Amino acid sequence: MITSESGTKTKYMVEFLPAGLKVEVPGGTTVLDAARIAGVVIDSLCGGDGVCGKCRVIVRHGIVRAAATQSLTREEIRQGYVLACEARIDGNVLIDVPTASQVRGKVRDADAVDIRVRESGLLERQRNELDPLVKKHCLRMEPARLENPQSDLNRLYHELAKLNCREESQLGLSVLRRLPGVVRNASGVVTVTSAHRGALTEITDIVSGDSSNPNLAVAVDIGTTSVVAHLIDVATGQSLSSAAKYNSQAVYGGDVLRRIMYCIEQPDGLTQLHTAVIEDINTLIRELLDKVQLSENYITFVVAAGNTTIMHTVMGMNPEWIRREPYVGVSYQPPPFRAAELGIMIHPRGLFYSLPCVSSFIGADITAGVLATGMTQSDEPRMLIDIGTNGEIVIGNKDWMVCASASAGPAFEGAETRDGMRATCGAIDHIRGWSSGQRFSFSTVGNESPCGLCGTAYVDLLAQLLRLQVMDKTGRLNTGNGIARLRKGAEGEPEFVVVKRGERGASRDLVITQSDIANLMRAKAAVYAASKILLTSLGLTMSDLSEIMVAGAFGNFLDLENAVFIGLLPDVPGEKLRFVGNTSLVGAKMAALDRQRYQEARRIANSMTYFELSTDPRFMEAFTSACFFPHTNIEEFPSVMAKVS
Amino acid sequence: MITSESGTKTKYMVEFLPAGLKVEVPGGTTVLDAARIAGVVIDSLCGGDGVCGKCRVIVRHGIVRAAATQSLTREEIRQGYVLACEARIDGNVLIDVPTASQVRGKVRDADAVDIRVRESGLLERQRNELDPLVKKHCLRMEPARLENPQSDLNRLYHELAKLNCREESQLGLSVLRRLPGVVRNASGVVTVTSAHRGALTEITDIVSGDSSNPNLAVAVDIGTTSVVAHLIDVATGQSLSSAAKYNSQAVYGGDVLRRIMYCIEQPDGLTQLHTAVIEDINTLIRELLDKVQLSENYITFVVAAGNTTIMHTVMGMNPEWIRREPYVGVSYQPPPFRAAELGIMIHPRGLFYSLPCVSSFIGADITAGVLATGMTQSDEPRMLIDIGTNGEIVIGNKDWMVCASASAGPAFEGAETRDGMRATCGAIDHIRGWSSGQRFSFSTVGNESPCGLCGTAYVDLLAQLLRLQVMDKTGRLNTGNGIARLRKGAEGEPEFVVVKRGERGASRDLVITQSDIANLMRAKAAVYAASKILLTSLGLTMSDLSEIMVAGAFGNFLDLENAVFIGLLPDVPGEKLRFVGNTSLVGAKMAALDRQRYQEARRIANSMTYFELSTDPRFMEAFTSACFFPHTNIEEFPSVMAKVS
Repeated sequence: MITSESGTKTKYMVEFLPAGLKVEVPGGTTVLDAARIAGVVIDSLCGGDGVCGKCRVIVRHGIVRAAATQSLTREEIRQGYVLACEARIDGNVLIDVPTASQVRGKVRDADAVDIRVRESGLLERQRNELDPLVKKHCLRMEPARLENPQSDLNRLYHELAKLNCREESQLGLSVLRRLPGVVRNASGVVTVTSAHRGALTEITDIVSGDSSNPNLAVAVDIGTTSVVAHLIDVATGQSLSSAAKYNSQAVYGGDVLRRIMYCIEQPDGLTQLHTAVIEDINTLIRELLDKVQLSENYITFVVAAGNTTIMHTVMGMNPEWIRREPYVGVSYQPPPFRAAELGIMIHPRGLFYSLPCVSSFIGADITAGVLATGMTQSDEPRMLIDIGTNGEIVIGNKDWMVCASASAGPAFEGAETRDGMRATCGAIDHIRGWSSGQRFSFSTVGNESPCGLCGTAYVDLLAQLLRLQVMDKTGRLNTGNGIARLRKGAEGEPEFVVVKRGERGASRDLVITQSDIANLMRAKAAVYAASKILLTSLGLTMSDLSEIMVAGAFGNFLDLENAVFIGLLPDVPGEKLRFVGNTSLVGAKMAALDRQRYQEARRIANSMTYFELSTDPRFMEAFTSACFFPHTNIEEFPSVMAKVS
Repeated sequence: MITSESGTKTKYMVEFLPAGLKVEVPGGTTVLDAARIAGVVIDSLCGGDGVCGKCRVIVRHGIVRAAATQSLTREEIRQGYVLACEARIDGNVLIDVPTASQVRGKVRDADAVDIRVRESGLLERQRNELDPLVKKHCLRMEPARLENPQSDLNRLYHELAKLNCREESQLGLSVLRRLPGVVRNASGVVTVTSAHRGALTEITDIVSGDSSNPNLAVAVDIGTTSVVAHLIDVATGQSLSSAAKYNSQAVYGGDVLRRIMYCIEQPDGLTQLHTAVIEDINTLIRELLDKVQLSENYITFVVAAGNTTIMHTVMGMNPEWIRREPYVGVSYQPPPFRAAELGIMIHPRGLFYSLPCVSSFIGADITAGVLATGMTQSDEPRMLIDIGTNGEIVIGNKDWMVCASASAGPAFEGAETRDGMRATCGAIDHIRGWSSGQRFSFSTVGNESPCGLCGTAYVDLLAQLLRLQVMDKTGRLNTGNGIARLRKGAEGEPEFVVVKRGERGASRDLVITQSDIANLMRAKAAVYAASKILLTSLGLTMSDLSEIMVAGAFGNFLDLENAVFIGLLPDVPGEKLRFVGNTSLVGAKMAALDRQRYQEARRIANSMTYFELSTDPRFMEAFTSACFFPHTNIEEFPSVMAKVS
């Protein structure tokens, strides 16, 4: 998408380092748009609005026009840094995209979810108990006889009925036309592929002979940030391979609201978002298949979970109204579609199933999480928390289920903080003790030189700053306490230098500013307040919960004690807190392997009561109380109280 | 399809009169194939096997090579007559296609079925009792509200549920993607098209505003010989227009077995048959729409009935195995398909429903007939007879239903007789008294000069010949009784001159030969024997039947008394014999307008017991007894006995 200033006709050559990709664009095009055209993926959390400051690039040669921005320090500007979304091409240029601005590399290992994923006892089920959404049946057709001259299709139905496939069937004309040839080959042995379509079964394929193995499915968790997929052998329920990558929609905005805006503002925005995520899915499918050296024709279906906006873009449904009051989507429970209709490359007649969403802000990832954690089987109430741009919270048991979504903001996702970034290579992911050398020990993703902090690092950092009393409980940095790393930034704002330039190869100082702390505080307060309001509405307290489960990749890497210490997670006994991993993926896999679970997901979505917090005055009150470390009411955090007293 | 002799490369120009169409073909091509390429439709009942003798054409100029044939008299050969299927092009030629060899003109009026078709009380039903297969609902969507933020699709389902549309729904991706735009226009007034798909309902279209009228359907009877269609206003159940034409598949064979042979022998035979009949249906649809000046987009579905082979060719399913023991088709109850998938031009997402067939030789036309006549509602057993190439017979009441198909052969269809032809323009259709001038008075279709006899004329003729004692009860022509019109034909075979050359403009003598009578005798005997065997199997006699219904166009024009007199129909009191018209079309229409009737048709097809006569020794015995006028056992024909005694 080229934003060309009127009258500007001259074209210029833009080259991007380190990839070396070149593109010719009209003068006036932004560097970000030029990069999109060239196929260079620059991180752009705000979708090009110039507010997130994440799309920093360095102009090595040539001329760009860029307005002043608060997102860059004087030193950076001197070094040639510009924001790619604001800088416009005004001559032939050579652009360097630094590591921290690239959406690249492997998703952190645990995002890809080890194949030995937690599966709530799923794999203990026996093979013959599996009832997958799409099955391949090998059967031998009785030849037609004069005494019983049933049509080819009827004899096929008869054999299927023997296998307990008694639903009314439909089949496409092309399959039906092939039927007589197929049943008269291979001594009447045929392999029938039958797909669950609610009240109907669709026969999606029929071939001569036994080709019932393998029957493969893909379960995919389509996150705002990353897409994770498993290739499943439907006969055994085993995952054969796994793959993950960043969601390429990131170039159109880091969070879902930015991406919706992109759909609204750009004439073909939805098409671009749709194409980007479908290409991601296809890339993952190719990778999954390469690992096991099998053809895409063996994949008979895909089951996907993701948040409501992402699922809209996957389906090509306009998400515009998700962000306009009263915030409703096109469909939360779309029926299965042919995968080919979405552009997904599996068997030509293979199907694409979405897990159901609950509302515009409680997506299929959450429904999948409830399914995966077996919450609907519990007598005792349990809580599921998924911390991301939105913090989604579900409380329930076998009898009832309530949920809410808190606009936490993307502070823990790497946006809205000065040196925040995704948990990609070079991101500091954990900060440990304050060493005698007056520096933190820390770890980075991929053990590379540090170039920013991801969400889990901020949790650790806030806890450390509290313990060191560099920061007080209101979140204010105590500039007066003589700690060397505390200083005033360029704009006069207090900031704490987490990592100094040169330390472990850092190319610049990495800091946390007073504003960063305020944003992180709001994020953690929103999550906590939401869970509090849900409990209060039910007349329950934290201690009534038998378990608090933290879902998502963030949860997997979180330091529990620190998360409680800053008041992000409720202060319950350690044995009640559990990380449950990528329950979106596990739920999708469970539904893939069991029609009853797929139907149960639909029941879950239908029966969940959604609390709209944005219009609830009690929420604002609870939020305000939670804007404190850990909380204004310290008695809600007894273990923290014991430590600090 | 060009059958070129090997080595023959020279091409010749062939012109066909009276159409004036020209085509260049390689030497050795048959005149019939040349005609097919040129788009000239020459009647070819045997599909080009050289046995029916119906494809006579006259070579006006040029050279063809043709073997001797018994089908042409010496006089005809002298006039230049050849059989188009046998004569091969050997130079530039000018071919004249005489009227009797053309498949052309309007189908006889009553084939088209007057719009005031007998509809078994259907039209007395009130409009609000109609429950058509595809409905258009105009509804007003509740706007989404914060208190009840249902997705667009859910709010749509909610409104549909208010209208008692409670089946599980599916909808295509393209419709779903249009949904949010549509529901936000026209104050939320939308028109939803919902189609019956068994256990599911498919939403095939959704548009803004009220466009629920008109909702049109096409009911079509696809006969071996002719195709008849009605355009129905689904809101009222009224037929708005009707149209009929000959089935263009006729050029590939006059009966279904010839057409199946054509599929087997020609590599793209099925495609040609499929294309021919689909083009016929499209031609009729255009004609139906032209009459009412409406667009094809208003037609939301088609319901079709026809025999099993024809339905196979319509669907593009290979009918090959219908004619190979054990005679089974691909599918007798195919699910609904998108009409566009078949090439039928209605609304792009409109559906094509087939009524169900029972077996390879009891088609959807018969199921439709049972539905239309309400046989399944009767306490008393009734019989339905459809006389065509096959005579199909059904006996049953509300508790049971049996059926059989007798290979009557095409004698009553115009084939297998010397001067037989279809009931098209110039065909003698009725023969009345033997006048004092020693000639028959007769009528012709279209009141044109006589050029042949159709089936109903043969029934009259046989009865007259019996009464005149020109023919005895065994069918032998009494050459010795001095009747002037009785003579020996060219091959020495006795024949009776029905119409002399010159009489009413006849271009040649029209005769009935001894062989013709034998063929007609076999045809009528097969029908009678089949009904007899069915009754005997049930332990019933003709007098146990409360009604005998004769279906089909043939039945409509049949002289009842003559039909009983020659033993074609059973000799029951006149009030028990009823012509029921085109019940295939009426049944299709009833199913179109009522989902329960559509389902009932499927129950009828499933519950009907099919008797295979070809392997039943009692059938051959009954057949032999019926090879007599009216029957060897005259007591089965009491009214005839009274007249002749």
